[in-house]
Amino acid sequence: MGSTVSAAFASDNAAGAHPRVIEAIIDANPGSVSSYGTDPSTERAAQALRAAFEAPDADVLFALTGTAANVIALASAVQPWQEILCSDIAHSLLDEAGGPVRLSGAQLTPLPSDDGLIAPQELDRHIARRGPVHHSQPRIVTITQSTENGRVWSPAALAQFIDYAHQHDLLVHVDGSRIANAIAALDVHPRDAIGDADIVTVGGTKNGMLFGDAVLVRRPEHFPGIRFVQKQIGHLASKHRFISAQFEAMLRDDLWLQSAAHANRMAATLSAGMAEAGLPLAAPTEANEVFVILDAPTTARVREQFAVHAPDPLRPIVRFVCSWATSDEDVAAALKVIAPD
Amino acid sequence: MGSTVSAAFASDNAAGAHPRVIEAIIDANPGSVSSYGTDPSTERAAQALRAAFEAPDADVLFALTGTAANVIALASAVQPWQEILCSDIAHSLLDEAGGPVRLSGAQLTPLPSDDGLIAPQELDRHIARRGPVHHSQPRIVTITQSTENGRVWSPAALAQFIDYAHQHDLLVHVDGSRIANAIAALDVHPRDAIGDADIVTVGGTKNGMLFGDAVLVRRPEHFPGIRFVQKQIGHLASKHRFISAQFEAMLRDDLWLQSAAHANRMAATLSAGMAEAGLPLAAPTEANEVFVILDAPTTARVREQFAVHAPDPLRPIVRFVCSWATSDEDVAAALKVIAPD
Amino acid sequence: MGSTVSAAFASDNAAGAHPRVIEAIIDANPGSVSSYGTDPSTERAAQALRAAFEAPDADVLFALTGTAANVIALASAVQPWQEILCSDIAHSLLDEAGGPVRLSGAQLTPLPSDDGLIAPQELDRHIARRGPVHHSQPRIVTITQSTENGRVWSPAALAQFIDYAHQHDLLVHVDGSRIANAIAALDVHPRDAIGDADIVTVGGTKNGMLFGDAVLVRRPEHFPGIRFVQKQIGHLASKHRFISAQFEAMLRDDLWLQSAAHANRMAATLSAGMAEAGLPLAAPTEANEVFVILDAPTTARVREQFAVHAPDPLRPIVRFVCSWATSDEDVAAALKVIAPD
Amino acid sequence: MGSTVSAAFASDNAAGAHPRVIEAIIDANPGSVSSYGTDPSTERAAQALRAAFEAPDADVLFALTGTAANVIALASAVQPWQEILCSDIAHSLLDEAGGPVRLSGAQLTPLPSDDGLIAPQELDRHIARRGPVHHSQPRIVTITQSTENGRVWSPAALAQFIDYAHQHDLLVHVDGSRIANAIAALDVHPRDAIGDADIVTVGGTKNGMLFGDAVLVRRPEHFPGIRFVQKQIGHLASKHRFISAQFEAMLRDDLWLQSAAHANRMAATLSAGMAEAGLPLAAPTEANEVFVILDAPTTARVREQFAVHAPDPLRPIVRFVCSWATSDEDVAAALKVIAPD
Repeated sequence: MGSTVSAAFASDNAAGAHPRVIEAIIDANPGSVSSYGTDPSTERAAQALRAAFEAPDADVLFALTGTAANVIALASAVQPWQEILCSDIAHSLLDEAGGPVRLSGAQLTPLPSDDGLIAPQELDRHIARRGPVHHSQPRIVTITQSTENGRVWSPAALAQFIDYAHQHDLLVHVDGSRIANAIAALDVHPRDAIGDADIVTVGGTKNGMLFGDAVLVRRPEHFPGIRFVQKQIGHLASKHRFISAQFEAMLRDDLWLQSAAHANRMAATLSAGMAEAGLPLAAPTEANEVFVILDAPTTARVREQFAVHAPDPLRPIVRFVCSWATSDEDVAAALKVIAPD
Repeated sequence: MGSTVSAAFASDNAAGAHPRVIEAIIDANPGSVSSYGTDPSTERAAQALRAAFEAPDADVLFALTGTAANVIALASAVQPWQEILCSDIAHSLLDEAGGPVRLSGAQLTPLPSDDGLIAPQELDRHIARRGPVHHSQPRIVTITQSTENGRVWSPAALAQFIDYAHQHDLLVHVDGSRIANAIAALDVHPRDAIGDADIVTVGGTKNGMLFGDAVLVRRPEHFPGIRFVQKQIGHLASKHRFISAQFEAMLRDDLWLQSAAHANRMAATLSAGMAEAGLPLAAPTEANEVFVILDAPTTARVREQFAVHAPDPLRPIVRFVCSWATSDEDVAAALKVIAPD
Repeated sequence: MGSTVSAAFASDNAAGAHPRVIEAIIDANPGSVSSYGTDPSTERAAQALRAAFEAPDADVLFALTGTAANVIALASAVQPWQEILCSDIAHSLLDEAGGPVRLSGAQLTPLPSDDGLIAPQELDRHIARRGPVHHSQPRIVTITQSTENGRVWSPAALAQFIDYAHQHDLLVHVDGSRIANAIAALDVHPRDAIGDADIVTVGGTKNGMLFGDAVLVRRPEHFPGIRFVQKQIGHLASKHRFISAQFEAMLRDDLWLQSAAHANRMAATLSAGMAEAGLPLAAPTEANEVFVILDAPTTARVREQFAVHAPDPLRPIVRFVCSWATSDEDVAAALKVIAPD
Repeated sequence: MGSTVSAAFASDNAAGAHPRVIEAIIDANPGSVSSYGTDPSTERAAQALRAAFEAPDADVLFALTGTAANVIALASAVQPWQEILCSDIAHSLLDEAGGPVRLSGAQLTPLPSDDGLIAPQELDRHIARRGPVHHSQPRIVTITQSTENGRVWSPAALAQFIDYAHQHDLLVHVDGSRIANAIAALDVHPRDAIGDADIVTVGGTKNGMLFGDAVLVRRPEHFPGIRFVQKQIGHLASKHRFISAQFEAMLRDDLWLQSAAHANRMAATLSAGMAEAGLPLAAPTEANEVFVILDAPTTARVREQFAVHAPDPLRPIVRFVCSWATSDEDVAAALKVIAPD
C-alpha cells in the first residue's frame, strides 16, 4: 500500500483505539492478578455488559476478535448433524474463512435476504425438513445487527423474526460486531436492538478497542460447552484483565454508544454528500457504512487516495466505513474524490 | 407401514438384489482369502470398472453405501478451509445428514440449478472470491448424474461445465449413484456420461446389488488421503470379496446397463401414462424417476397403496422411482391409482 | 500374495460367511421392502439382539463394519472437548486409522494395560483432572471383550471396572467385535460378558457374517445423536434387510455362540500344540487368538505358508486367529510349520 | 480468591506487561492503518523475529495466545489421518482443552518423557507402524522449550532429537511459550535453542507482553494452510499493529532475553532457598519454574498467601513460576512461608 493511500474508510478496524481505552490499559497494568478471567476486572466488565443489556442472568465471556466470538457462539450451539442458518451475505458465511463450519462440523446454509435482513418465511423449508435422520437438523439462525450491508433490524422486525424462529424451536444468534452502531442508529435501549436473541456477539474492536469482543449468553443452557470452545481456540486470554479493562472503559458513561453515534453521523454525512452528487447507493445508509455504486474511473480515482473494500466481486460497489475516529475532514476528502465538483 | 402398502416405487433401493448378484455372493464364499481388499476378486472388480469407463490409470476403491462413497470422495478432496460447491438439490447437501461437511470441515455451498443441472456461470461469484484468507476457497464442485430430480446431463452440457470448472482450477466430482441410468438414457459409452470428471461415485446398490458403491478416482494426485478416509469411516470392508464379487457380476455382460435401461423404460411408461391422464410433471422424465404434481386426494389415495417420497416439503410433488425389479404390473397398478380411468 | 500362501490364520475375517448366513441372504431377497432399516427383518433382528443380551430397553442399530460400529458409538458419546479413554492396544487407538478421533474431535488417551485388561485405578489421574476448562474432560472409556491380545475380561473384573467408571461418572463402551468368542470362552450368559456397559459393539463379521456389526445402546439418553452419526458416515444401509437377515440367522439357535466356541477350540488346540513344542506364548490363549513368540527363521517359514499378522512392530510376536471355518487340518498344518517335529 | 492471596507465583502470566510494551501500545495508536496484518509494524515485527532466530526465509504470523499459536502450528501440519506425537506432560496434551485434536482431527499421542525431555527412541514404535492404512500416520512431534516442568533441552539433545525425527520423516514443532527463558538459561544464540525445528511457537505473553505469541514457520511448504487456520479461529487480529508493536518492543535491545534472564534468576534464588531448607525438588530448576514437593501443612500455609498450581493431581507437587516482574521481595516472602526458619 503506497504511503499516500489512506485507510480511513477501509474498515472501522483501521482506526486505533479510543484514548480512554488506552488509559484503561495503562491503569490495569500494575501488579499480579490471577489469570484466565478470574480477576476482578473481568467480573466487573461482565457485570457492566449484563447491566447494559438488562440481562442479569446472562453468562458473559470474552474473545479477542469478532470472528472468534462468532465461532465460539455458533460452534457451541450445534452438534455436527445440525444446521446453522444465516443470511446470504453473513460475515460468518463469507468472511470467516469457513471457521464456523470447521469448528462445528455443521452445515451453514445461506438464506435469501434483503441486505442481510431475512424474512421469517425463509426459514420454512428448513424447518419442514426437520426430523428424518437423512437431513441436517436446523438448530440456530444467525443474523447480524447492523448487517454487513449497513442495514439495521428494527425492533419490530427483529421481534417478529426471533418469535418465528423460537416458535419453530430455532435458537437465534445476533452477530453484533457493530451492535453499538445499530443501537445508536435506532436510538433505543440496547436490549431492544437484540430482541429476545439467545446469544449475542458484542463487538468491541470496531467500536474503539484495541481488540476484544464479548459473548452475551442469555440462555446458557443451550450452549453448555461454550467455555471449552473459547479455551480450545485460544480465546481465554491469560492476562485477561487487558480485555476486561477495555470493556469497562467502553461501557462506562456510554462511551461505546457515543463512539458509535459519531461513526453513524459521519456515514450519514458521507452518504448525503454522495446522494447530492447523484451517485446511486447500493443500500440505504442506516448505520456507519456507506455502499455506493461507482463507475470504473471514479473507483480508480478513489483507490489512489483511499483503501476501500468492494464487497461483491461481480458488482461495482464500493464500501466506506466510518468509525469513532472518522473526522469531518476525512469525509470532506472522500467526497472531494468521489464527487469532485 | 401397513401390510398392504407397496414399496415398489419408494426408491430404487426398495428392490432386492439381482439374481446374478446373489449367485456371485454364493460363488465368492468358499475358502479363506486375504481381507481388506487385497483379494483377487477386488483387483478384478477394479479392473472391470476401469475398463468400463476407459480409465486405465484410475484408482478404484469401494464403499458399502452411496452416501459413504460421496463422503469419501468429497472429504478427501478438500482442506477444512476450502469450499465444496453443489446444486441446491444435491443429495450431498440435503440427504446425507451433513456427512460431507462433518467429515471435511469444509463449507458446502448450494448453487441455483435447473433440477440439479447447473449453469457454468453459477460458479463465477465463488471463483472471484478466491485468494484472500478471509474466504473459504472453492476447490471442488459436485454434480449428480442422473440428478436427484431425474434429469440427465448431456455429454455436451457436461463437457462445457467441467471445462469451465477446470479452467478455473476447480475439481469436479460426479455423484453417480444412478450413473447407469444416465448412461442407459443417453445411450452413450460410459466415459461420455462422466466427461472429464476428476472423481466419480459409481452406484451399485440402486443398480441391483445388495449394497456397494465404487469410487473411480481418475486424478488420484488430488485425493491423496482417500484410502484413509475410507478406512476411518468404516468402509474398508474386511471380507471385501463380497463387495467385489457383486461389482464383477454387475459389470459382466453389461448387466448394470441392462438393469438401468429396464428401470428407465418402466419410468418412461409410467411418465407417459401420467401425461396421458393430464397430470403435470414437476420435471421431465429422463432416467428412472418420475416427479408428478398431485392434488391432495390423489396423493392420499396413492399413499394407501404405495410408499412414495415427497422431495420438496413445500410443494405437492410425488416421486416414483423404478428399478431393475419394477414390472409392467407395478406400473399398471400405479397408474390405476393415480389416474383411475 | 503368492498362490500357495493360506489366509486361514490371518484373521477371523479371512473366512467366508457361514452357510446359514448365505441362506438367509437368499431368503431375504425377494420383493420390495422399505429401506433404511424400516423393514420387518430389521425390527426382528434388533429384537433378537435385545433378547440375547437381556436388554429389553436398548436401542439397536447396525453398521456394515466393526470400525464403523466403534466410531458411531464413540463419536456419539462425546463432545469435542471431552476425552475418550482406551487401552494402549485398543483397536480404536491403533487400527481404525484415527477414525474415532476424526469423527469426534475428542482426545483418545491410552491407558496402560495387561494385554488390554485395564486396572480401574488407571482412570484416576484423568478423573482428577476433570473440571477446569483447561483440560479435556474424560467422558467414556472403551474396553475390548475379548481383547486385541486374545484375553477375556472375567465377569468379576468387568463388574469392578465398570462400577468404578460409573462411580466416577464415566460411560463404558465395550468393543465386542469378538464378543461371541468371549461369551463362549466364559461360558456365561451373554449379559455377563458385557456387565453394565452403557453401549456395546456386537461383532457379526468376524463371527461368520458377510459383513455387519451391531450397536447395542443400553443407555440411549447418553448417545442422543447416534443415528445421525450412523447416517453421516454411510452406515445406514438402504437395503437394510441384507444386514438384518444375517443377524437373524446368527442369533437363531445360538449359531453365533457355536461358531465362536468352535473358533475358541481351534485356538486352544493350536496353542496347546505350541506349548507342547516349547514355544513361548506372548499372551495366554483365552479366546480365538494365539500370540506366539517366534524366532526369525521360524517366522520366515510360517510366512511361506501362512499370511499372519505381527501386532507389535518392535517384538517378534506372531498372531494366529481361528474362526468358525478353521478346521483341524488347518491347525495341524500350522503346527507342522511352526513345530516340525 | 481472597484479597490477601498473591498471584505473584501462580504463573508468569499473572504479571502485567513490561512498561516498554505499554509505551509501544501508546506509540502505535494514532492514525488509520490497514488492518489484518498488512500494516508496516507487522512487517517490521516479523522481520525482527526472523533476524532474532537467523531465519531469513521463515514465514511469521501472530496469534493472540500461546494455545492459539500451538493449535495453528499443529493443525496446519497434519491431515486428519495423521498423528501428532508429544510428551506425556505437553501443554498441548493436558492444558489446551483438546484444542489441537479438535482443530486437526488427528490423534495426539503422548510419549514417555523425563520432565518433558523425550528420548529419540520413543519415536520408534510409531514410526514402525507407518504405512498401512489401518494406522494413524505419524507426521509431527511437538516438544516444549523450556518444558512444562521447567527443564531445558540442551542444544546437543535438541539436535539429536530433531535429527532423528527428520531422518524418519517427522516434522518437529517447538512450543516456545517460554522460549526466551530457555535461551537465557542456555546462554546461547536463539537459533541454538530451537535447533533445526520446522516450526516454532514464540511466546510473548509470558515474556512480558499484554498478549500475543508468534509462529515462526521455517519450512512453510509443510504448513500450506496455516494462515487460513489462523483466520478461522479468530487470530488474525484486525487492529494487528497492537500485537506487532509489542513484539517490536520486546525484540528491541534484547528486552525479551533480559526479561527472561531476570525471571530465571528469581527462580534460581527461590530454588536455592528451598534446597537450603531441605525441601525436595520434583524437577531440577533450569529456567523460570520451580517444582517442589511439599507436605500438606506447608501447602496449606502457602495457599493462604500465594495462589499456586499443583501440576499433578496425584502427587504433592507445588509449582512456583517467576516472571519479568518477580522481585527479590516476592522470593523472600515465598521462602518465608515455605521454610519459615
